[in-house]
Amino acid sequence: MKRGFASDNNAPVHPLIMDALQRANDGHCIAYGDDLYTSRAVEKIKEIFGTSSEVFFVFTGTAANVLGLTAATRPFNSIVCAETAHIHTDECGAPERFTGCKILSIPTGNGKITPAQVTKHLHGFGFEHHSQPGVVSITQATELGTLYTLQEIKELAELAHANGLLLHVDGARLANAAVALSCSFGDMITGTGADILSFGGTKNGLMYGEAIVFLNSQLAENFKYIRKQGMQLASKMRYIAAQFDAYLTNDLWKSLAEHANAMARLLAQEVAKIPGIQITQPVQANGVFAILPPEIIPQLQKEYFFYVWDEMRSEVRWMCSWDTTEEDVLRFTEILSKAMESRK
Amino acid sequence: MKRGFASDNNAPVHPLIMDALQRANDGHCIAYGDDLYTSRAVEKIKEIFGTSSEVFFVFTGTAANVLGLTAATRPFNSIVCAETAHIHTDECGAPERFTGCKILSIPTGNGKITPAQVTKHLHGFGFEHHSQPGVVSITQATELGTLYTLQEIKELAELAHANGLLLHVDGARLANAAVALSCSFGDMITGTGADILSFGGTKNGLMYGEAIVFLNSQLAENFKYIRKQGMQLASKMRYIAAQFDAYLTNDLWKSLAEHANAMARLLAQEVAKIPGIQITQPVQANGVFAILPPEIIPQLQKEYFFYVWDEMRSEVRWMCSWDTTEEDVLRFTEILSKAMESRK
Amino acid sequence: MKRGFASDNNAPVHPLIMDALQRANDGHCIAYGDDLYTSRAVEKIKEIFGTSSEVFFVFTGTAANVLGLTAATRPFNSIVCAETAHIHTDECGAPERFTGCKILSIPTGNGKITPAQVTKHLHGFGFEHHSQPGVVSITQATELGTLYTLQEIKELAELAHANGLLLHVDGARLANAAVALSCSFGDMITGTGADILSFGGTKNGLMYGEAIVFLNSQLAENFKYIRKQGMQLASKMRYIAAQFDAYLTNDLWKSLAEHANAMARLLAQEVAKIPGIQITQPVQANGVFAILPPEIIPQLQKEYFFYVWDEMRSEVRWMCSWDTTEEDVLRFTEILSKAMESRK
Amino acid sequence: MKRGFASDNNAPVHPLIMDALQRANDGHCIAYGDDLYTSRAVEKIKEIFGTSSEVFFVFTGTAANVLGLTAATRPFNSIVCAETAHIHTDECGAPERFTGCKILSIPTGNGKITPAQVTKHLHGFGFEHHSQPGVVSITQATELGTLYTLQEIKELAELAHANGLLLHVDGARLANAAVALSCSFGDMITGTGADILSFGGTKNGLMYGEAIVFLNSQLAENFKYIRKQGMQLASKMRYIAAQFDAYLTNDLWKSLAEHANAMARLLAQEVAKIPGIQITQPVQANGVFAILPPEIIPQLQKEYFFYVWDEMRSEVRWMCSWDTTEEDVLRFTEILSKAMESRK
Repeated sequence: MKRGFASDNNAPVHPLIMDALQRANDGHCIAYGDDLYTSRAVEKIKEIFGTSSEVFFVFTGTAANVLGLTAATRPFNSIVCAETAHIHTDECGAPERFTGCKILSIPTGNGKITPAQVTKHLHGFGFEHHSQPGVVSITQATELGTLYTLQEIKELAELAHANGLLLHVDGARLANAAVALSCSFGDMITGTGADILSFGGTKNGLMYGEAIVFLNSQLAENFKYIRKQGMQLASKMRYIAAQFDAYLTNDLWKSLAEHANAMARLLAQEVAKIPGIQITQPVQANGVFAILPPEIIPQLQKEYFFYVWDEMRSEVRWMCSWDTTEEDVLRFTEILSKAMESRK
Repeated sequence: MKRGFASDNNAPVHPLIMDALQRANDGHCIAYGDDLYTSRAVEKIKEIFGTSSEVFFVFTGTAANVLGLTAATRPFNSIVCAETAHIHTDECGAPERFTGCKILSIPTGNGKITPAQVTKHLHGFGFEHHSQPGVVSITQATELGTLYTLQEIKELAELAHANGLLLHVDGARLANAAVALSCSFGDMITGTGADILSFGGTKNGLMYGEAIVFLNSQLAENFKYIRKQGMQLASKMRYIAAQFDAYLTNDLWKSLAEHANAMARLLAQEVAKIPGIQITQPVQANGVFAILPPEIIPQLQKEYFFYVWDEMRSEVRWMCSWDTTEEDVLRFTEILSKAMESRK
Repeated sequence: MKRGFASDNNAPVHPLIMDALQRANDGHCIAYGDDLYTSRAVEKIKEIFGTSSEVFFVFTGTAANVLGLTAATRPFNSIVCAETAHIHTDECGAPERFTGCKILSIPTGNGKITPAQVTKHLHGFGFEHHSQPGVVSITQATELGTLYTLQEIKELAELAHANGLLLHVDGARLANAAVALSCSFGDMITGTGADILSFGGTKNGLMYGEAIVFLNSQLAENFKYIRKQGMQLASKMRYIAAQFDAYLTNDLWKSLAEHANAMARLLAQEVAKIPGIQITQPVQANGVFAILPPEIIPQLQKEYFFYVWDEMRSEVRWMCSWDTTEEDVLRFTEILSKAMESRK
Repeated sequence: MKRGFASDNNAPVHPLIMDALQRANDGHCIAYGDDLYTSRAVEKIKEIFGTSSEVFFVFTGTAANVLGLTAATRPFNSIVCAETAHIHTDECGAPERFTGCKILSIPTGNGKITPAQVTKHLHGFGFEHHSQPGVVSITQATELGTLYTLQEIKELAELAHANGLLLHVDGARLANAAVALSCSFGDMITGTGADILSFGGTKNGLMYGEAIVFLNSQLAENFKYIRKQGMQLASKMRYIAAQFDAYLTNDLWKSLAEHANAMARLLAQEVAKIPGIQITQPVQANGVFAILPPEIIPQLQKEYFFYVWDEMRSEVRWMCSWDTTEEDVLRFTEILSKAMESRK
């Protein structure tokens, strides 16, 4: 199969994760999470996020977002997020359907929402005609490859808490953000005051499985029922747990994310040398967004597959992953360069 | 970890499935199912169930049931099933929450519902106060280890169709049923007129993943949206597909299910030799149900873990799996025999 | 329009209720319940049920049941009720759809569930595969015209509370029950320990409107949002409130219900004189159930309309209402008597 | 009770509607809509909207919107509307909760959405990650007292249909729009190609009750179940029907709406004479929006109650209703004029 920059989900599973799956495949093990693999992986994650955290595995990032939000809301609440948020744009309405909540989206240039923007939605408290603001949800790294600073997360958490809301972080690419900001997961989440985290691994080398982390154990009170009723309780849970265990061992997550980010930087750097191409977002994590002449896109896609992000603007998205190679980047930018030249 | 008869979900993944996962772990692959592994596995399943069938992978058996039923109903419908059905007893209300439908359960002695029992719920058609009967759902093999004959399934399908309903089959243990009845999957489902199938693999040697099979492609019309909104679209779909591909290659499913069933028969046969133990259900698939003196249960569980099925009756459930060994059975029945003797 | 015994909903609105509507139709009044009519009616109902109660008006009995149950549950709960309960049989699945809960129904001969029957459903606590028992729901008077004694309600409330559940009472015909038992509404609900009441008026002379009474104000905490999101917040609330005010003034409710019950007793007494007709339920409120020869039913319906309750048994239901007259009863039983005679 | 300009819902019921309720209060009548009052009122409405229309009564405007949209969507759809739409701002998330759909809101200056704005949301068709655009919903007259021309509605209907969507009209104030545009209801809805209408009466003199009109009878196919499961089936339906019958007799709707609109025009005209007050929206129906000095608002509210619309801008809303008098307007504007003068 052709290589590409289409999605970090197109990459394979890291060999150390495969090894962990193989090692876990040994004899009988109680189903549904009441096993040693699960308790060990949960313990590891709780060490990262603090003793008052609670951890639950689910299958997909969408499920992590939706079920975490379900635990934090009642159906008459609203959830405030960026217009580009995965929960708003890429989950086919799953949050609305399962939480029953209204989603209030904020237009942004860079995928990041600000306290001032959120504040505009913080009204109507106690007014029964109005969905009651319940959660602010941000994505870190954002869907546009940008990052919130720790200070920015902290300010959003404080704004949320001051108004009785919770802060949810969609961390499908949390590792890419943490290495870019040179901070720990704990600094970014526990340290900033976030309340609920979708802690992703699939985009950074796992086969499947995400963790929902509640920073306050009270939020997790009935969560086992919510997960089961949400169709996300894995029977052979050990295989999700074993992946997370390996992911968090010897900083595997870090080396994978650092590599993906480095490849994105290299890609941006090489693209910057080609006249006529505009990079549209700061390259802070593992994604590069750029505006290309529309006529060259199809031929490029034949060599290295990627998606058009915004057809109107002829803006494309290139995602790097743990397995992107320097050769991939250099070969692709060479093809790109030639395509641009041949237009003249 | 201690071996046991607790659940076929406690067994590990079959080595050939692990091999398939390893082989699929090669290079880039388009996410979300638009890949060759998925199309090959889907094709294989369609060959089994016929050209008008449509196939979708999801993560869990609960999801297969709930999303399949969602495709087949509107929220004002009712779903008729046995009181012991997984959808009624073991899914924490997921079917009600996601389909919006009413579940009408039928008490049975053996986990099987009859046309006469179903008929009692086929009323109120066109009467808006009454949930409109929409689906009959059966489990094959049942939760009590019993089997519907092909003729019985056919009669339920005919009854359903004659009244404008559909027949859903929860086939979490479909392989165990097929080998026990010496028929193909197609004979059991396509041949009987069933409409929607939850085609399970996890209980028979897979790591994760189930297939929803719509026997009539019209039922699948909008299903991709239902699956996505149902939080069950796998990003790295190739790894579910690769498992099913291997499962259906060289009749792996058959040899695994035959073995599990054989172990259950052996277990029943050995237990039958021990005076004072009553086997409560015909042993037709891979489960054995028996009434034990309550005082010996805890000591047995220490050696080989299993669950009490009905505390009131002191009835236990022993499940055999693809990896249950003759030695497991013989050692366990020896322990059981001794425990019974020592009571005298 | 022909008179009949079809339903207490077929009766008109009592003149004193019409007068109250007319009196309330005076000038401007803040919408959505923030008005004096509403506060006065709410106060009156709180006087009946006690100072810790909270009261909310909605439009229909189905809404009263469903929204009251929504306040008392989370979607992973189950609700235990009689197989004949309105919430199970006559609300087209509204409780499942809106609460997300599973409904567990109990077969009964007389519409009443017993603590022993409920107890069979009180298991699986803490087990995430199982819908968590959350509410016991009873109907008083029942859909079969029978009554729970105060002691029976008390025992169900105690059983519920001892297991962490709540007791809900569908009181669409609460007035008929109260006059039959010679007790106050407070004796029947507050005095027995019930937690949530659907307090109906429409079947006893109102035009529209029901009250949801939470006996414990904590249950009402977010209810205004639930009602609004449940599409049951009346804009011109004063007109519901005015009806309840009149209903509770000078014991109007009592005289209407006493009359309806008396007519049912008279009907039963007259029917008992006719050989060949079997009355199938104790006549304790305003309904009479009887088995008739099927061939005479259509001709009777032409004179006085009523419904067949159970086609299989040829059992019919006759409901008396506040406007049923002695003449209605005597003329109808005369027609019935003649129809029976002419069969010989 | 003090008079005011707070809401057309604060007005009482028109005497001719009260008379109709009184006349309908005569003897027995089959419950749940199977009666002559209902069939007559439905027939009258069908005459207005055409023979392929279907009509259903519900209790509230929120219910009319939500249930109409439920009939027109599946949960994986999206609904496009103005940011100020009642379904987005004033229904506490009822549309999301009951339809399961995503609502996509468009910022507007005047409450009206344009084809160009809608078009921006018409993408992602067939892409399962994206809620599938299903309905365009407009309000006529809008929540800001402005109007769509017939041509504008027609263009939105054409855009919707060309893309496989339906056009929904929230007509809580349809009468005000029709008289302002000097057209019939049929011209505005049937004539423009709209598909679903919430046909309101409560804001224009009824006590309670709205009609859902499906312009194409296929949309109504299962609607009776949706209404019942949506808790909106009235038992004593005749009383809603009788109100609509009277409302549509001798153009009562027209004289009431004309009066309310005329009062709004008079109010705007008088206010325009007062220096320092900015009217912020064209006064096309029965509402007037204006920016006032914040410090005078509380004293005005003491004399004539009204609501602040936008606290930030100190913008208020004045609604006129069928019972607003010239004296109300002139007295209020005199008070307002004095309050403005005394500031100097």
